[in-house]
Amino acid sequence: MKTMNDLFLHVLKDIYYAEKQVLKALPKMEKAAETPELKKALENHRHETEGQVERLEQVFSEIDKPARGERCEAIMGIISEGEDVIKKGDEPAVIDAGLIAAAQAVEHYEIARYGTLIAWAEQLGLSDSAALLKETLQEEKAADRNLTEIAEASVNRQAAA
Amino acid sequence: MKTMNDLFLHVLKDIYYAEKQVLKALPKMEKAAETPELKKALENHRHETEGQVERLEQVFSEIDKPARGERCEAIMGIISEGEDVIKKGDEPAVIDAGLIAAAQAVEHYEIARYGTLIAWAEQLGLSDSAALLKETLQEEKAADRNLTEIAEASVNRQAAA
Repeated sequence: MKTMNDLFLHVLKDIYYAEKQVLKALPKMEKAAETPELKKALENHRHETEGQVERLEQVFSEIDKPARGERCEAIMGIISEGEDVIKKGDEPAVIDAGLIAAAQAVEHYEIARYGTLIAWAEQLGLSDSAALLKETLQEEKAADRNLTEIAEASVNRQAAA
Repeated sequence: MKTMNDLFLHVLKDIYYAEKQVLKALPKMEKAAETPELKKALENHRHETEGQVERLEQVFSEIDKPARGERCEAIMGIISEGEDVIKKGDEPAVIDAGLIAAAQAVEHYEIARYGTLIAWAEQLGLSDSAALLKETLQEEKAADRNLTEIAEASVNRQAAA
């Protein structure tokens, strides 16, 4: 990696792979969730994630590269922690609290990656890409806040009961 | 995992392991960094992280459990991406930009984890632990902002030059 363009492409492939893995993981999380608001939030975020994958494909297209992922160990680790909660959890509300924690770890990984990509896109003069990535970043931040609200409104209290 | 106490302990072990891994990774990142402000920020954060590990040990003590980590695949993945940048990077400013990206991914993982632990500690009535974890969360958020400032002040422009 000699240039910022190389770095940008590297992290773009990383998050493209990550979003696709998240798309595979979300249906299992939706199925495991018991609280209706959480089930719905995960389902909504799955639809949002489909749009985010498309935006990433537009970014690949702006830099004239094929849309290709690159294995991202970080997201695999975060997702496997969520799967652990589903496997080892024994009480619905406790599972829901664990699912929210796992989903927020996913959101924060994405928030870090999109923040980086936006700064680099702006530096590289890729203004269309920067605008697309900003839309996604706002969605990730809103999804994170929404999960906090669901946890605070009911899940945490039930899990501690 | 039957109770929120089980979940709390599980995530506490996860972040304890993660912080210790970060402590091992930071000296390599400091050594690889070229920009003096970045080198200094990583060094400062290493000292902060030592304090954060101690706070976690106080939290273990409040819940009467031995301070023990539990392998966290997420942080291993995030750290290995940072090592990749050092290994494959070819230009000092490009390496620095990649190091900042990796360090911000670490910060965001920690921000997610501490946010979760604070909410659970409050729900479980662990007010001393909640206060300790909040101090750490503020440090992580400040470290993340500081890295953004260093990237914007000089590193990104140099990396794109």
